[in-house]
Amino acid sequence: MSANHPAPSERTQVKRISENARYDQESLYAIVDAAYVCHVAFHDQFGSHCIPTACWREGDFLYIHGANASRLCKVMKEGVQACVAILHLDGLVLARAAFNHSMNYRSAMIYGSFMVVPEEDKAASMAAFMEKIAPGRQAQVRPGNRAELAGTTVLKISLQEAVCKTRQGGPNDDEDDLTLPVWAGVLPLQLQAQAPIAATPLQTVPEPDYVKSWGQVRD
Amino acid sequence: MSANHPAPSERTQVKRISENARYDQESLYAIVDAAYVCHVAFHDQFGSHCIPTACWREGDFLYIHGANASRLCKVMKEGVQACVAILHLDGLVLARAAFNHSMNYRSAMIYGSFMVVPEEDKAASMAAFMEKIAPGRQAQVRPGNRAELAGTTVLKISLQEAVCKTRQGGPNDDEDDLTLPVWAGVLPLQLQAQAPIAATPLQTVPEPDYVKSWGQVRD
Repeated sequence: MSANHPAPSERTQVKRISENARYDQESLYAIVDAAYVCHVAFHDQFGSHCIPTACWREGDFLYIHGANASRLCKVMKEGVQACVAILHLDGLVLARAAFNHSMNYRSAMIYGSFMVVPEEDKAASMAAFMEKIAPGRQAQVRPGNRAELAGTTVLKISLQEAVCKTRQGGPNDDEDDLTLPVWAGVLPLQLQAQAPIAATPLQTVPEPDYVKSWGQVRD
Repeated sequence: MSANHPAPSERTQVKRISENARYDQESLYAIVDAAYVCHVAFHDQFGSHCIPTACWREGDFLYIHGANASRLCKVMKEGVQACVAILHLDGLVLARAAFNHSMNYRSAMIYGSFMVVPEEDKAASMAAFMEKIAPGRQAQVRPGNRAELAGTTVLKISLQEAVCKTRQGGPNDDEDDLTLPVWAGVLPLQLQAQAPIAATPLQTVPEPDYVKSWGQVRD
């Protein structure tokens, strides 16, 4: 897979355990689309920062948003270089030797600069975010009014300079350790939906499908 | 709470929705101890980077580790400024108005520079990490040999310059929106343990307690 899709740049070239790297669009989109949040790294006069924030994908761009006055939005509007990371932790890998312990995960890293989504496109982008969170809900809620939209900055970053790294499966032990009398295997982890909690005051409205179906595997 | 514990520095002072900030040690330790992974941001000649990696806490330090040859370890050994972020996503908050949608989460951000854990302390630190992952397992596995330990870099960063930000609870809707005929509430998310998967070849050893009990809530 990696062989068919070379790294798009020097800084996305995985060097450690490079057989776990993926540079294809399908792998990237799957990891991005499974994420509600990402971490954005950038550098300013106070140093390096690492900010978690909600994210969604439209086409070949990852989107974030925030209040106009937030530092993240203000800095990103200036076009500073950013690195966006997404991680899904899938399990703890217990090997027979301490050294061979590992974790299963799916991760993506995106390099570039964010661009400001123009005023006329903001409402559609925020609706796309809502569609990811709760399909069909945009038509049910009070949409953003002029002031709310005006106070919100929406930003997007190209997914062109990106790399994925994943690990799946059981432990890779040394041959000599395979007969050691210790349990080995994977302790899986999964981000799972829990029972919905209705807000008070309760509304006498039927639960929409995205609430009824909440409780299935989300990740 | 925030009033009793001021921000330790200018760059840890939360400005947006500052009532959600926490600067006390108890909040910080709880968020760090619940995490298997963190994201480390730093800046080098290629720009800003955001690297997910495993983490654990000992006393007032957060620890990470890696191969000596990994970029993260090489750069951190030089003492460059870093920002470490930890995030637990607890749910999607569905408000009556699109604008008031939010997420529930517990997050921590730590600023500083990593220090190299000296050779003579590495084995004990890696054992502390194992104790977090699987209590009692260090005594069961083959411990790291001289070459394995020599090839591993362990790094720690002080938890002194840190800040937490959390959101819990239902949506905060505008008064005028409370009677809108739309479902509102929280769709909770939780990182949950799934059934353990034993490695092949199967060992005829009893499951240790940390495997038997896997399946309880981990986050």
